[in-house]
Amino acid sequence: MSSPTIHGIIGYTITPFSADGQRVDLDALGRSIDRLIDGGVHAIAPLGSTGEGAYLSDAEWDEVSAYSLAKIARRVPTIVSVSDLTTAKAVRRARYAEANGADVVMVLPTSYWKLSEAEIIAYYAAIGDSIGVPIMLYNNPATSGTDMSVDLILRIIKQVANVTMVKESTGDIQRMHQLHRHSDVPFYNGCNPLALEAFAAGAKGWCTAAPNLIPQLNLALYEAVLANDLTQARELFYRQLPLLDFILKGGLPATIKAGLRLTGLEAGDPRLPVFPLGETGIEHLRKMLTTV
Amino acid sequence: MSSPTIHGIIGYTITPFSADGQRVDLDALGRSIDRLIDGGVHAIAPLGSTGEGAYLSDAEWDEVSAYSLAKIARRVPTIVSVSDLTTAKAVRRARYAEANGADVVMVLPTSYWKLSEAEIIAYYAAIGDSIGVPIMLYNNPATSGTDMSVDLILRIIKQVANVTMVKESTGDIQRMHQLHRHSDVPFYNGCNPLALEAFAAGAKGWCTAAPNLIPQLNLALYEAVLANDLTQARELFYRQLPLLDFILKGGLPATIKAGLRLTGLEAGDPRLPVFPLGETGIEHLRKMLTTV
Amino acid sequence: MSSPTIHGIIGYTITPFSADGQRVDLDALGRSIDRLIDGGVHAIAPLGSTGEGAYLSDAEWDEVSAYSLAKIARRVPTIVSVSDLTTAKAVRRARYAEANGADVVMVLPTSYWKLSEAEIIAYYAAIGDSIGVPIMLYNNPATSGTDMSVDLILRIIKQVANVTMVKESTGDIQRMHQLHRHSDVPFYNGCNPLALEAFAAGAKGWCTAAPNLIPQLNLALYEAVLANDLTQARELFYRQLPLLDFILKGGLPATIKAGLRLTGLEAGDPRLPVFPLGETGIEHLRKMLTTV
Amino acid sequence: MSSPTIHGIIGYTITPFSADGQRVDLDALGRSIDRLIDGGVHAIAPLGSTGEGAYLSDAEWDEVSAYSLAKIARRVPTIVSVSDLTTAKAVRRARYAEANGADVVMVLPTSYWKLSEAEIIAYYAAIGDSIGVPIMLYNNPATSGTDMSVDLILRIIKQVANVTMVKESTGDIQRMHQLHRHSDVPFYNGCNPLALEAFAAGAKGWCTAAPNLIPQLNLALYEAVLANDLTQARELFYRQLPLLDFILKGGLPATIKAGLRLTGLEAGDPRLPVFPLGETGIEHLRKMLTTV
Repeated sequence: MSSPTIHGIIGYTITPFSADGQRVDLDALGRSIDRLIDGGVHAIAPLGSTGEGAYLSDAEWDEVSAYSLAKIARRVPTIVSVSDLTTAKAVRRARYAEANGADVVMVLPTSYWKLSEAEIIAYYAAIGDSIGVPIMLYNNPATSGTDMSVDLILRIIKQVANVTMVKESTGDIQRMHQLHRHSDVPFYNGCNPLALEAFAAGAKGWCTAAPNLIPQLNLALYEAVLANDLTQARELFYRQLPLLDFILKGGLPATIKAGLRLTGLEAGDPRLPVFPLGETGIEHLRKMLTTV
Repeated sequence: MSSPTIHGIIGYTITPFSADGQRVDLDALGRSIDRLIDGGVHAIAPLGSTGEGAYLSDAEWDEVSAYSLAKIARRVPTIVSVSDLTTAKAVRRARYAEANGADVVMVLPTSYWKLSEAEIIAYYAAIGDSIGVPIMLYNNPATSGTDMSVDLILRIIKQVANVTMVKESTGDIQRMHQLHRHSDVPFYNGCNPLALEAFAAGAKGWCTAAPNLIPQLNLALYEAVLANDLTQARELFYRQLPLLDFILKGGLPATIKAGLRLTGLEAGDPRLPVFPLGETGIEHLRKMLTTV
Repeated sequence: MSSPTIHGIIGYTITPFSADGQRVDLDALGRSIDRLIDGGVHAIAPLGSTGEGAYLSDAEWDEVSAYSLAKIARRVPTIVSVSDLTTAKAVRRARYAEANGADVVMVLPTSYWKLSEAEIIAYYAAIGDSIGVPIMLYNNPATSGTDMSVDLILRIIKQVANVTMVKESTGDIQRMHQLHRHSDVPFYNGCNPLALEAFAAGAKGWCTAAPNLIPQLNLALYEAVLANDLTQARELFYRQLPLLDFILKGGLPATIKAGLRLTGLEAGDPRLPVFPLGETGIEHLRKMLTTV
Repeated sequence: MSSPTIHGIIGYTITPFSADGQRVDLDALGRSIDRLIDGGVHAIAPLGSTGEGAYLSDAEWDEVSAYSLAKIARRVPTIVSVSDLTTAKAVRRARYAEANGADVVMVLPTSYWKLSEAEIIAYYAAIGDSIGVPIMLYNNPATSGTDMSVDLILRIIKQVANVTMVKESTGDIQRMHQLHRHSDVPFYNGCNPLALEAFAAGAKGWCTAAPNLIPQLNLALYEAVLANDLTQARELFYRQLPLLDFILKGGLPATIKAGLRLTGLEAGDPRLPVFPLGETGIEHLRKMLTTV
C-alpha cells in the first residue's frame, strides 16, 4: 500500500462546543481548521485526544468527522482517529472516515479490559481488513491504559499490511531508537516536550495540538531540523518548551480551547468531567502567548 | 441518607450475547440472575466490569439495566454500575437506574483524559446531586486508569452526602486500613484474591463475579468470618484461591462466560476486542470446577 | 536440614551508638536485648535493617554480632542478618555468625548492580554452601533494590538446601498466597502494617522491631491468631496500627531509637545520613506510646 | 568556586582484578587509563559504577584512587566517585581523593534506608563543607534507589556552593530540559543510549564507559554536535547504539571487561555476585566490535 507522505507538523483539531456544551459548534471548527492550514501545518488530524473524540456521541462523531474532511478538502492530508471501545465500533468509524475522504486513520487500542497481545493484534487486523487506507498505529498508555512494546508494534506492522506508520506518545525516546534499529517504518512523535529529541532521532513528523496556538514556532523547529541546524533547532525548542510543558500538564482540550479564546476564536469549554482552564492557568497562558 | 444494608457476597452479573455477538440475550441473563439468587448471594450488581457495561450501546445498557432490576424484583438489594465517559452520560444512567428500582448505584471515575482531584470530586457531586439513592464509590485503577487515594476518597465522602460506601479494588490492603482508621464508612473488597484478608481487616462485603461459578465456597468463607473461625476461613479461602486467581488473570467476562457454558448456561462470548477463553484455559477451568 | 522452630514474634535489635556516633554502645545493646526477651519475643534478629548493619564497619559488625549472640545466650533462637555487597563478604559474615552461635542467618540480595536471577541464585548457593545452619531468604525490594518473584524464591529453595524459610517484606499479600499454594516453606512477614493479614494468610511469624516498644500488643495479636479469635486479633491489630504505620513511615532506626529514649533506654541516634526523629515526630510518638 | 572545564567525553575506568578476584591489578588499571587517554577522552572518572567502587574494601578503594590519579597525572581532568553508605565514610573518601589530586568528586546519595530530601541535602552539604574541589551531583535511581527530582537538585545546588555540575542518569530527557529551563548549571548525560538526545538538549558532556572500547565513535559523535551537524551526529549515534544498548543491558563491569579482554587487555572478571559476561554475550560483543 502506498502511503500518502505524512511528515512535518501534523496539527490536531479541537472540537468546539456551544456555550451550554450540548452541541458541536461546526462554524468554530471550520475556522480552527482554516487557522491550522493558514499556519502552515503539513497535515491535519481530526478527532484525536485533543478533539475529545472519546466524549462525543456516535452521531456527533460522524458529524465532526464528515465536516472536518469536507472543510479540509484535501488542502493537506488528513489522519482521522477512529478508536472506540469495541472492535465493531472502531471498524464502523474507520469505514466512515474512509468513505468521507480520510487519507489515513489513526488507531489506539482503547479498551476497558486490559488486552492481551493477541487481542491487540486482532483489533488492528480487523480494522485493517475493513478499509483501504493506511493506518497510523498510535501508542499512548497514558490515555489508553495499554502500552504496546516495540516488539509488539513490529509484529503488528508485519501482520497487518496497512499499518504503515507509528505514532509514539510514551515520551520514551528509546522506543524510537528501537523502531529505527529494527524497521524502516516511519515514526511520529506524539509527546510535545520530546519534539527536539524525536526529530534528532529521526522522527518523520510531530503530531501536536500546539499549532492551534504557535504554528510559526512549531514549523520553524521542523525547518531547522531539515536544514541540519541543531543549534537553531535547540534554541527554537527551548523557546516553545514552556508552552509545550504547559499544554501537556494542563490537558490539551482545556489549554488549547483557552488559548483559542485568548486569540479570538471562541470554541467553548471541554466536556465535563474535564474542567476548563482555571483563572491562574489562563493568566499564565496569556503571558506565554504574548512573549513567545 | 439511610443506606440499604449491603453486606456479604455481592454477585456480579455477566451480560450474555447472542451467538453472533450482536444482541443481548435477555433470557440467558435472567437465568444467570436466578442462579446467583439461588446460590445465596446477599446482593446483585448488574453492569459492572464483568457485565461488559463499557462495551454496550446506550440502548443496550438501558435494556440490560431495566431487565435486570425487573428480574431481580427486590429479592436481594441491587447495585447498578453507571459510570460513563462524560458526566452528563453518567448522570443519565444513574437516573435511569434509580427510576428502574436500583437500591444503590456504583460509580467509577472513568475518563479518557486523566482527571484532577477537583474534577473527580465534581464528577461524584454531579451524580450525587441528581439522584436520591446511595452511591458506592468504586476505585479500580487497573480498569479506570485513575487511582483515588484514601485521602481523596474521604474528601468525596465528606462532600457528597450520598456517597456512603467504598468498593476498593486496588488489592492494596493498606487502603482498607486507612479507611478504617480515619472513617467509619463501610468498605467492600473488589479484588478476588484478597477476599480473606479484606474480611480479616473488616470489609463488610465482597464484590465478586465468582458466585456465578462457586457460590457455596464464596458464602462459606463469609460465614466462617462471621462465625469468627479464622482457621476455617483460611482453609476455605485457599480452596477457592486457584479459581479466584484464574478468573482475575484470565479476565472476568471471558472466564465467567466459559464457566457458565461449562455448567450448562450458554451466555455467548465477550465482545471483541476481548477474546473468549482459549482451549487450554477452558480445560483448566473445567478441572478446577470439578474439583473445588 | 532440620530448622529450629522459628515462629511467632521475632524481635529486631537496634544498634546503639555513643553520643558522638563513633562507637557502638554494647551496654545499651545488652539492655535492649534483655528488654526484648523480658517482653516475651519468640526469637531475636540482630543486625537487620533496624540494626543499621549496612552502616557498620566490618569490625563493628563482628563486635555487635558476637556480643548479641553471647548476650542472648540461647534464651531464644537467633537469626543474624549477614548480607553484604560482595559474595565473599557475605560468606565471611555468615561463617562468623555461625561460629558465634547463630541458629539461622538471614540473607537479602543487596547489590549495587542489579543482579540477574542466575546471579541471585549463585549468591544464595555460595552462602548456603559455606555454612551449616539454615538460611532465611529475605525479600525486601524497598531496601535492596531487588525484587525476587515467588517463582525465583521457589527455585532458590529447591536448589539451595539450607534455604528453609522466607521473610517477605514487599507488603504484597499475594506473594504469601503463592508461597502457600506452591510450597510448604514457612513464610514470615516483614511488613509491619501487614501483620494481621499475614497471620490470616498463614504466616508462621512476624519479623518486627515493634517489640522494642510495644511487645505486649505484638504478642497478644499472635496469641489471638493462635486462639483462632479473628475478632480479637483485628481489634488488637487496629490498636497498634498507628504505631506500626508510624515506625514504617518514619524509618525504623530513627523511630525505634527515639521510642527507646522515651522509655528510658538511651541508645543514641542513627548514623548519618539517616536523621534522628524530629521534634514533632518525637511528640507524636510519645503520645502513641502512652495511649496504646 | 571556579570549576575545571569538564566537557565532552568523560571516560569511566574499570577496576581490574587478579585472576582469583582477590587483588586489584594496578598494572592493568594503568594500561586501561593510558588507552582512554590515547583514545582522546576529555576527562577520566575513576571508581564510578563501572569501576565497581561499591565492591572494594576501604584499603582497595584508596589504592585504586591514589594510583589512578597518579597515573593520569593531570593529562586530563579527573572526577572521582566518592559515594559511600555513611556520611562519615563518604567525607573520608572525598578528602582522600582531593588530597590525591582529584579535580572533581562525584557524589551519588547511596543509602540502605531511603533518605528524605532533608537527609539528602545534609549529605551533600557535609561532603561539600569538607573539601575544596567541586562536586558533580549524580542522580541514578537504578543503582542508588534514590531518585532526586529536578527541584531537589536545584535546591542542593543553591545550598551547597561547590555542587556545580549535575550528572543525570535516569535516561529521562525531560530532567535535562528542566535543568536547562530553571538553571544554568552544566549537566552531563550518564545514560549511554541517550547520548544523541542529551547533546541535542545541550548536555555539556557524556559520562560513559564506552570509550574503553569505541573511543573514536564516542568522540566523533561529540565533534559532530560541536560542528552543528545533526545528520552526521544521528548517523554516528545509530552506528554505536547497538553497542551502547548492549553494555547497558549486560552490565558495565561485565561487558567492558569482556570487551577489554577481546581487544587484548586482560582486566579479570567482575567481583561476585556480579557474573562475567557469558559465552553468547562474548560472541555477540566480538561481532559488534569488529563491525562498528
